[in-house]
Amino acid sequence: MDIEDIQIYVETPDSPRLDPTKQMPSWILLITFMGTRKLSSNHVQYFKQLLGSESAVIDGVSKDASADLEAFNCDWLRKYRGHTKLVLRPKSTEEVSKIVKYCNDNMLAVVPQGGNTGLVGGSIPVFDEIIVSTARMNSIRSFDEMSGILVADAGCILEVVDQYLAGRSHIFPLDLGAKGSCHLGGNVSTNAGGLRLLRYGSLHGNVLGVEVVVPDGTIVDELSTLRKNNTGYDLKQLFIGAEGTIGIITGVSILCPQRPQAVNVAYLGLESFGKAQLAFREAKRHLSEILSAFELMDGISQELVERVAKKKPPLEGKHPFYCLIETSGSNKEHDDEKLEKYLEFVLSNDIISDGVLAQDETQVQSLWSWREGIPECLNHWGGVYKYDVSIPLPELYQLVDDTRERLSSAGLIGDDESLPVVGVVGYGHMGDSNLHLNVPTRRFDRDVEKELEPFVYEWIQKRNGSISAEHGLGIAKKPFIGYSRSRKMLDMMKDIKKLYDPNGIMNPYKYI
Amino acid sequence: MDIEDIQIYVETPDSPRLDPTKQMPSWILLITFMGTRKLSSNHVQYFKQLLGSESAVIDGVSKDASADLEAFNCDWLRKYRGHTKLVLRPKSTEEVSKIVKYCNDNMLAVVPQGGNTGLVGGSIPVFDEIIVSTARMNSIRSFDEMSGILVADAGCILEVVDQYLAGRSHIFPLDLGAKGSCHLGGNVSTNAGGLRLLRYGSLHGNVLGVEVVVPDGTIVDELSTLRKNNTGYDLKQLFIGAEGTIGIITGVSILCPQRPQAVNVAYLGLESFGKAQLAFREAKRHLSEILSAFELMDGISQELVERVAKKKPPLEGKHPFYCLIETSGSNKEHDDEKLEKYLEFVLSNDIISDGVLAQDETQVQSLWSWREGIPECLNHWGGVYKYDVSIPLPELYQLVDDTRERLSSAGLIGDDESLPVVGVVGYGHMGDSNLHLNVPTRRFDRDVEKELEPFVYEWIQKRNGSISAEHGLGIAKKPFIGYSRSRKMLDMMKDIKKLYDPNGIMNPYKYI
Repeated sequence: MDIEDIQIYVETPDSPRLDPTKQMPSWILLITFMGTRKLSSNHVQYFKQLLGSESAVIDGVSKDASADLEAFNCDWLRKYRGHTKLVLRPKSTEEVSKIVKYCNDNMLAVVPQGGNTGLVGGSIPVFDEIIVSTARMNSIRSFDEMSGILVADAGCILEVVDQYLAGRSHIFPLDLGAKGSCHLGGNVSTNAGGLRLLRYGSLHGNVLGVEVVVPDGTIVDELSTLRKNNTGYDLKQLFIGAEGTIGIITGVSILCPQRPQAVNVAYLGLESFGKAQLAFREAKRHLSEILSAFELMDGISQELVERVAKKKPPLEGKHPFYCLIETSGSNKEHDDEKLEKYLEFVLSNDIISDGVLAQDETQVQSLWSWREGIPECLNHWGGVYKYDVSIPLPELYQLVDDTRERLSSAGLIGDDESLPVVGVVGYGHMGDSNLHLNVPTRRFDRDVEKELEPFVYEWIQKRNGSISAEHGLGIAKKPFIGYSRSRKMLDMMKDIKKLYDPNGIMNPYKYI
Repeated sequence: MDIEDIQIYVETPDSPRLDPTKQMPSWILLITFMGTRKLSSNHVQYFKQLLGSESAVIDGVSKDASADLEAFNCDWLRKYRGHTKLVLRPKSTEEVSKIVKYCNDNMLAVVPQGGNTGLVGGSIPVFDEIIVSTARMNSIRSFDEMSGILVADAGCILEVVDQYLAGRSHIFPLDLGAKGSCHLGGNVSTNAGGLRLLRYGSLHGNVLGVEVVVPDGTIVDELSTLRKNNTGYDLKQLFIGAEGTIGIITGVSILCPQRPQAVNVAYLGLESFGKAQLAFREAKRHLSEILSAFELMDGISQELVERVAKKKPPLEGKHPFYCLIETSGSNKEHDDEKLEKYLEFVLSNDIISDGVLAQDETQVQSLWSWREGIPECLNHWGGVYKYDVSIPLPELYQLVDDTRERLSSAGLIGDDESLPVVGVVGYGHMGDSNLHLNVPTRRFDRDVEKELEPFVYEWIQKRNGSISAEHGLGIAKKPFIGYSRSRKMLDMMKDIKKLYDPNGIMNPYKYI
């Protein structure tokens, strides 16, 4: 990339929105002027007094604390970097409330941060916003085994909570790769999707209540433990996926299902995406209530895993497509019987070309590794252009074919080391119509980028797809939201932001 | 009731809210002044021209049309009555858009109406608001069998849609008594709960998109057919349960599950509510993914059904509590085996005292009639005081005991015909923590009302319950919302209403 490729766009609260459908350079430096103020040592003094303990404040204003601040200023992929000088680690909702009220009164910008495992820079400051970390708010407040309803602090780590629930025969209705670090508050704030969505549905259905500190410092206690409550607008829904732009979630109430006692996995080889759709339809019919994952992997993704991981593939011979099916139920014998019947049906009806069923827990893990190992293997050649998108199911894979065709026509793909692109790979949560389009590359290349964008976004827009299925907007997708939302919707969203955060202090410079 | 019992409360947009926790007469005449205008024959002329067809406009302004207007002015329980002079029956979203824009420009109040099956007066005008009926917008727009995603007009009747889906092996994820008349748009606008919530979750999780005409007439096309779409605030959630106060839903996109191929029912007798909770916990453990209903009926409810319907009870002997368990799955043998094992377990562990399992479809229906027949049987004595509430599960039934104790102490209950109250009955969707507290009575009586309110509301408020679990607010619950929502939440809701409906034309005088 050359310096002249960078387009600078300066945004003020009143300037017209960037319209990416008309004006889409490869790189945009988006500068947004908000009304927030610079941090002073007087402010830091106030927070130190408020939070008391030494460890609750990482102060880079009065001294150099850049080493301690590094983990908060940078995301785990080292893609985004902010310049905060102050991290606050409150221990209670009341402390969060006082922090936010003070920041609002003094026009100081705030970025809430959980496990900092996001992929779009949503929890990283852009400039010197104060980071409010939920790390020290990590108590499970209550769990009712009868109803399966859990109430917990926002800073609880997902895996810790799931382990707690495992001991009580329940399961957290969300699972994702970062579970060892991510926080419940962050999960809810980003409306995390993950692996269990096909079975348990989205957080919009499972979250029963939230406790939120809104920008004026008020604690909104909506920690309902009720499944049904039709008394007015369901405002908690606005905070689910708001990425901390209208308040800080400090507590969550969530419905947790019974933990399945039996899990099994089948791995299938198929001739075409059309057959993969048939296999999915039949999986819903045969496996219905026990179906817990239906994942798609294209042939090239599995070839690359084989080449890089040097493992023996689960099936003999090559297939254009592969699917991984997981079942979770309460009776192993019943589930195995259903899964075997399913395999018989799809084999004898020529829907699948081949298939294998895990015989034990080790084989379950081994089959999953052919799906879960893809992202790591794709990094093998240097870099990967990644898109996490939703497309209506019938056309889900077409994006991969069309992108491959486009890069081929441009002469950019091949085994020849001089060509930038290794291949165009598609895989993902087919059961949720969520595709990961990945382009592993030997080097980042301007020509490749020019072919990919805005092509991919325009392609998705034409099919009413989403440019961000489960990762959110953050700073990464902010300029592109116009591809997935109408002007009117954007205006309505901006009205909400102005209404609930009139001073613009909450996670500014991002999101809508 | 005497005339002096009526308290008049006049509300303007700027007046303080009624605080029912401090001031709670039995009957309140709530008069709200809004800025809307009176309908003239010029307005009617405009609509006639716009909608063209004769049948699209029921005009009570230029002539007497009270007979034709009656069905729109009155709810099916004949509890609420409005005085509309104009019903509009648009055939397309574009027509709705033009109607609403004209009403907004001319400050005319509008009430959207679907099947008019609500229980709280939400779809009935209070004065002479224009009714916009969705009845003529009843096309199924698309259904994708692969993903199970249905897109349909707001005026589609629930049962018609479910039958359409049945022919395609799918099921609508909502079921309720009024399914033969209610409209999808009304279901979504009122966030209807119903019978399948335990299994398929709430509409907040299942509705993928809505098409809404907002008060300025803009058509907001958010008819997404995506399960995952993290691009900004999930504003569609605000319209789910908004009861038409910020826009008219004209189309719905919803995820429909695979239709279960096997349904079975068990009917249990239990010693105590504590044991009913254990039976529920074990049902979740044993039946997990196939559990589709767990209903509670107390002893008196079943005695009254027996007395009124003169049927032989399913079990010998009397029990203080009964539960009905329904399973829905994809394999009848597996489901039966699970249900039998469950019954063995709860019987041999003394969790239930007795139980019976339906042997065929007729017995399934017959067992269900002991639960579904309750409301009708309770009407036998004259009237019923009804409360539809949510309470955290451990205390769900305590409200019934405490209410019975209170009415007993006041000497108001008994078999003696001179006493007003026949009994205090509790039943409901135990699996969703949703209780129907019913007080069948020989006559409506001021002394009974004084004992019931505000007692019931205060009792619920102390347990963070909801005063309206699934019926909504409408006109009936508007004055009582303060028992279930904090002042701050109410303010935030009112801000939304002002933001999205600044002229206050959409379903005024109701809701928040």
